[in-house]
Amino acid sequence: MAADAVATLNRTGSPGRNTERVREILGWYESDNPGTKTNIARLLNHGYLAGTGKLVILPVDQGFEHGPARSFAVNAAAYDPNYHFEIALQAGCNAYAAPLGFIEAAAARHAGEVPLILKLNNHDVLHDEKDPISAVTGSVKDALRLGCVAIGFTIYPGSANAKAMYEQLRGLAEEAKANGLAVVVWSYPRGSSLSKEGETAIDVVAYAAHIAAQLGAHVVKVKLPSDHIEQVEAQKAYAKSAVPIGTLAERVRHVVQSTFDGRRIVIFSGGAKKDRDEDVFDEARAIRDGGGFGSIIGRNSFQRPREHAVKFLQTMMKIYAGEVK
Amino acid sequence: MAADAVATLNRTGSPGRNTERVREILGWYESDNPGTKTNIARLLNHGYLAGTGKLVILPVDQGFEHGPARSFAVNAAAYDPNYHFEIALQAGCNAYAAPLGFIEAAAARHAGEVPLILKLNNHDVLHDEKDPISAVTGSVKDALRLGCVAIGFTIYPGSANAKAMYEQLRGLAEEAKANGLAVVVWSYPRGSSLSKEGETAIDVVAYAAHIAAQLGAHVVKVKLPSDHIEQVEAQKAYAKSAVPIGTLAERVRHVVQSTFDGRRIVIFSGGAKKDRDEDVFDEARAIRDGGGFGSIIGRNSFQRPREHAVKFLQTMMKIYAGEVK
Amino acid sequence: MAADAVATLNRTGSPGRNTERVREILGWYESDNPGTKTNIARLLNHGYLAGTGKLVILPVDQGFEHGPARSFAVNAAAYDPNYHFEIALQAGCNAYAAPLGFIEAAAARHAGEVPLILKLNNHDVLHDEKDPISAVTGSVKDALRLGCVAIGFTIYPGSANAKAMYEQLRGLAEEAKANGLAVVVWSYPRGSSLSKEGETAIDVVAYAAHIAAQLGAHVVKVKLPSDHIEQVEAQKAYAKSAVPIGTLAERVRHVVQSTFDGRRIVIFSGGAKKDRDEDVFDEARAIRDGGGFGSIIGRNSFQRPREHAVKFLQTMMKIYAGEVK
Amino acid sequence: MAADAVATLNRTGSPGRNTERVREILGWYESDNPGTKTNIARLLNHGYLAGTGKLVILPVDQGFEHGPARSFAVNAAAYDPNYHFEIALQAGCNAYAAPLGFIEAAAARHAGEVPLILKLNNHDVLHDEKDPISAVTGSVKDALRLGCVAIGFTIYPGSANAKAMYEQLRGLAEEAKANGLAVVVWSYPRGSSLSKEGETAIDVVAYAAHIAAQLGAHVVKVKLPSDHIEQVEAQKAYAKSAVPIGTLAERVRHVVQSTFDGRRIVIFSGGAKKDRDEDVFDEARAIRDGGGFGSIIGRNSFQRPREHAVKFLQTMMKIYAGEVK
Amino acid sequence: MAADAVATLNRTGSPGRNTERVREILGWYESDNPGTKTNIARLLNHGYLAGTGKLVILPVDQGFEHGPARSFAVNAAAYDPNYHFEIALQAGCNAYAAPLGFIEAAAARHAGEVPLILKLNNHDVLHDEKDPISAVTGSVKDALRLGCVAIGFTIYPGSANAKAMYEQLRGLAEEAKANGLAVVVWSYPRGSSLSKEGETAIDVVAYAAHIAAQLGAHVVKVKLPSDHIEQVEAQKAYAKSAVPIGTLAERVRHVVQSTFDGRRIVIFSGGAKKDRDEDVFDEARAIRDGGGFGSIIGRNSFQRPREHAVKFLQTMMKIYAGEVK
Repeated sequence: MAADAVATLNRTGSPGRNTERVREILGWYESDNPGTKTNIARLLNHGYLAGTGKLVILPVDQGFEHGPARSFAVNAAAYDPNYHFEIALQAGCNAYAAPLGFIEAAAARHAGEVPLILKLNNHDVLHDEKDPISAVTGSVKDALRLGCVAIGFTIYPGSANAKAMYEQLRGLAEEAKANGLAVVVWSYPRGSSLSKEGETAIDVVAYAAHIAAQLGAHVVKVKLPSDHIEQVEAQKAYAKSAVPIGTLAERVRHVVQSTFDGRRIVIFSGGAKKDRDEDVFDEARAIRDGGGFGSIIGRNSFQRPREHAVKFLQTMMKIYAGEVK
Repeated sequence: MAADAVATLNRTGSPGRNTERVREILGWYESDNPGTKTNIARLLNHGYLAGTGKLVILPVDQGFEHGPARSFAVNAAAYDPNYHFEIALQAGCNAYAAPLGFIEAAAARHAGEVPLILKLNNHDVLHDEKDPISAVTGSVKDALRLGCVAIGFTIYPGSANAKAMYEQLRGLAEEAKANGLAVVVWSYPRGSSLSKEGETAIDVVAYAAHIAAQLGAHVVKVKLPSDHIEQVEAQKAYAKSAVPIGTLAERVRHVVQSTFDGRRIVIFSGGAKKDRDEDVFDEARAIRDGGGFGSIIGRNSFQRPREHAVKFLQTMMKIYAGEVK
Repeated sequence: MAADAVATLNRTGSPGRNTERVREILGWYESDNPGTKTNIARLLNHGYLAGTGKLVILPVDQGFEHGPARSFAVNAAAYDPNYHFEIALQAGCNAYAAPLGFIEAAAARHAGEVPLILKLNNHDVLHDEKDPISAVTGSVKDALRLGCVAIGFTIYPGSANAKAMYEQLRGLAEEAKANGLAVVVWSYPRGSSLSKEGETAIDVVAYAAHIAAQLGAHVVKVKLPSDHIEQVEAQKAYAKSAVPIGTLAERVRHVVQSTFDGRRIVIFSGGAKKDRDEDVFDEARAIRDGGGFGSIIGRNSFQRPREHAVKFLQTMMKIYAGEVK
Repeated sequence: MAADAVATLNRTGSPGRNTERVREILGWYESDNPGTKTNIARLLNHGYLAGTGKLVILPVDQGFEHGPARSFAVNAAAYDPNYHFEIALQAGCNAYAAPLGFIEAAAARHAGEVPLILKLNNHDVLHDEKDPISAVTGSVKDALRLGCVAIGFTIYPGSANAKAMYEQLRGLAEEAKANGLAVVVWSYPRGSSLSKEGETAIDVVAYAAHIAAQLGAHVVKVKLPSDHIEQVEAQKAYAKSAVPIGTLAERVRHVVQSTFDGRRIVIFSGGAKKDRDEDVFDEARAIRDGGGFGSIIGRNSFQRPREHAVKFLQTMMKIYAGEVK
Repeated sequence: MAADAVATLNRTGSPGRNTERVREILGWYESDNPGTKTNIARLLNHGYLAGTGKLVILPVDQGFEHGPARSFAVNAAAYDPNYHFEIALQAGCNAYAAPLGFIEAAAARHAGEVPLILKLNNHDVLHDEKDPISAVTGSVKDALRLGCVAIGFTIYPGSANAKAMYEQLRGLAEEAKANGLAVVVWSYPRGSSLSKEGETAIDVVAYAAHIAAQLGAHVVKVKLPSDHIEQVEAQKAYAKSAVPIGTLAERVRHVVQSTFDGRRIVIFSGGAKKDRDEDVFDEARAIRDGGGFGSIIGRNSFQRPREHAVKFLQTMMKIYAGEVK
């Protein structure tokens, strides 16, 4: 039975020792204090992918971002904040990320069971803007009192309001690091100066990942890039150097390269719910083969029945673990 | 005589013990400290509906919101701040909510007689805006020195200024919780990107309730929703999942579901004064039958003579208590 | 059944309204803000004696003061922090007072069920002193986060360290009052300049009660005084004015008079466990007849089996309520 | 190989889920926020005894307390701060506790590998006192930046300076809890009013454990008690109630009972290095059989060669796990 | 010419790049931020011994400690604060340490020329005590505004006031580290519980070095130890483990071992001015051969004419560099 799993599992050998790969990754964060390194290690050492250096994270901020019915009506069990902790646990995700309310509603009963990322800013679509900015809806103190390993923060490079978000992030990240927390940045290009296609253009996504890393993120989350190149000046550079961006794996590799030559953890989101699971799995294979660190999978997880979701997430993890081709 | 009621009533059995239902509700607030749980219990254990898990709250911020004559001329006794304490007490409401001035004017003489909610922000119509934002007119320290059980705060999802309000609420809620107070959020969709009809559309009201809960509200107050669906993307989601929203009770149920699957207290306002009391009672029946937690009734209470108001409120309570069909 | 008691009890009449006597008592605290008045009202309106202006409070700091075995071995159920909440609830005490650990251990599950007084300083006998001073073991912020109505604080007038305690109390009381809490002061004469007999001498006890009131206490707790007069100068004064101190009731009356002519709540402790209950009851009758406000009964309550304790406490209450002669 | 242990171990079932016993223990800390509950869970879920509710902790503050040669000369490898992390890891201890310098010296390279307790005060014997007080040598902020799960603090009940230590602990514990850390208190009776024999007398040890719990400790550490009763008043109480203290297991049971009737984690130290391991194992059996939660084993661990130490610690754990009689 | 000295002296090609030894030493400070590591590197990379991992530091706090005439009359040029900067520069010392006034008086004109250590506490002999405590005479902010690489702080283990000094150091070290400074601790056993001989006893010096390291010092400075063993309990430990302490080099080795097994920089002072330079050189040879990191040489430097001092210091450095036997 699951309830005894921890005790059983930890009764062998040397529990807790970091793998070589985890040590290597932690080595990239050499300016951070042991507290922050500890919390990055917790992210890397939890769940099915523990110790592999790969991550699958469950984020559930869609209720805030798109409204509850658009997020949860298709699988009504997901209205319950406990449901997502359960999915993350049962599937063996590395972490669960959500806004304040969802974390507060169920963190105590799941104390210590899954690493938590408190999303410190959030956006809703009741008021739409060309140049969006999220509201800051949580604090570093909230993250500490709720037992989180990291704060999460979204920036919209390309927005006329990007600078305000960068500056909010700066202050929150400084406070988080001083208190031993990790910093996860969602970097989503959006705004009046980008075309719709440009939001996932390879040059723009790579640029957004780089900005997040420059702002001090330990973990960077971006969308999977297309082979479109949005910026005219960038088009010249990509052409001149013949940067390989033909396949998704190549583009993932380029984004990872753009994020300090692979010395920051970069994970990718799948975006809107896909019709065919095989499409998501193919993306995971491309992320893996391109040297990406994993996926953050929201709607594709919680918008289906629980057992399907668990099976789906575990297939993802097996792809990253190399157990499924 | 009323003056001896407390002593008489409490002379039997085990005063104070929470009912099973109250314990269940308190269990949803597992991240909160005992102080906040105590003040939520005070809300639930006061008045006619004490212990039932249902609430009828008297709010009087209309003087600030609409001006005194529009609010009180029809029943001039209501200009007096004491009047509203008296109504709340005589009718047995769970709590009385008002801005700083009204609370300061009469809290001392009614010390301990009715749970108080200090409305920390308020809006007036002397300056009208398409995208409103309320002024912060009170503090958590005010709530403590005035003996309140909760702070109240209004957000206007859909306003271009919504984010500023979310951020004000974030800070005030963090401080309130640290000091053992509860947080009641009025979530009223308004603003330039919503149609008038959209302000009470079922998708928008459910969304507004969800946002309030994600911002950390213990009690969420929304308007009763219509069967209109405002957002195009939401229309698809409601249709696809065939969310039942045909009756008012069904819509209430959907809003409650959208607020952490019923794990937050959601109460509803009746809006503008109704011509027929029976219409308000029908709404209360729908709230009760849809699993809502109660009503917050302002103008329908204080814009009529005192004895009528008390009788009206008590009929409401009997509906929630199941004593009146 | 007890579990439904609140709902049943509050379904009649006008719950919450203060009695005339409670209003009169609250009127003495006219410099206090409504928050503090509210919390004094909560003390006066809870339990069997609600509304009568009389109080029976259960204090359990003896574990800290005398050690656990001396306190609880005789009734081992009392080792459990939940036990005391249960006794206070079942008997209908006005409040339960204890140090930080005991309150933290069970406050959440009993949220709102009984008014709590957090004892902010405590003393142990592992190191004995002629001129004792207690350690400050809790804060006003603790009291707020735990949902307490008051802070409790012990002073030892007569100790060479008394001034340090007065000054600690001053700061804590100022903070408590600003945050709407009440202040309960245990005033126990002790120290190298008092004889053992002098600790309960009528002149000394009256003096200690007066000092506590002058330090800003809302509720003063002293030991029952003997007819001994300790101070030579005082002996002259008592003789000259023929202050009646012959009976216990007269001495209680004098202590109450000494505490702002009865305009502060003064309660009395019974001290060590008595062999005969009737002796304790006689003391209660004397307190009642002398105009005292009630008793604070620790060891005589929790050092006997639960049902005996409840019956014992309820007899005390009936004496104060005038229902038992 | 050990380096892959985590990944291998966590690839099965539902990693992270708390056992029933861990949930039960966490339930005792109902006033704490989810952060503190999370860190208590981390203590309980690490190492060989993960999930059992039992703990074996490695403390290494003897270098500070007794000097380096007295602590480490017998096993010179132990001069190296890394050595102790290695022992804790290899043996599968629940946690490692040490002063600032030792933690700073090796926390980064072992990030996340073993739960850390930062000893915030320490004492040395270069200046000896009858009534000792430790120096505060670390801060809550240090604990956060170093990734610790708890602060550790020593009090000396019985010292003339005890009150100062209680008050230091009060402030540090309040700050630790607000930031989601756990509080471990070493409660060691010492001082001019206790005989040498009295320091481990059953009444004194039980009293010291009770005081630590009343001060808000989550985990209490005391020495194993003898059957001596130090305090005259206590002798009467033990005799009157016939408290069973004849065997070590009975005395452990009494100490556990004295710590909120077993609702706080109480662990025991073995004291000075024993000549025969079997004596230490017998003590562990008594702790286990008396309902104690485990051991904190310093000198008996690190004052012998590494492989012996690991084997010794693992035998201890097997006794607690019930795998060795 | 002096201006080229540094580059030449850096002994091996590539100015700026840390040597293997410096990298190894920096690796011991793994919990520190890059700012602190940078300032430790500056200490290690300056002067004649740059890159060797050895240090010779010039301290001039004797004016404060013993009065100006006792310190400077013998070489009146030394009254001038500029003089000491000049000596340090000309000789190629790793750093210059002094109280606030001396640093303020000449830091600007020598900006960047020699690493500075601001002594934050100082003691004078106008008032003498058995249990001394130094006055805090500078701040971390002073150290920053004056361009220092480290703060210096003296503790007197063995003093009845030692705890107060440890606690001052704790706070200052935390602040210094957060601001990227290094922490140098002078650990000088003194006080009423030590014999005069005990102040330099091998057990006491090793203990004092260990305490400084546990308090978080990056660099520890102690006096050279004698073969006396002061503490009775320590005598047993040294005998039992046959710790070799017969020669000065052996004793140095034991002190280095006691300071985290050599994982902290430990330097030694020569104490009072020696009559024969060869005695000082012999001590340096013993420090070098015992694995010590260098010397801190005050009176033996500035109490002789400038050119003699420079030659004297350079001989010391050549001994450490292995260029002089």
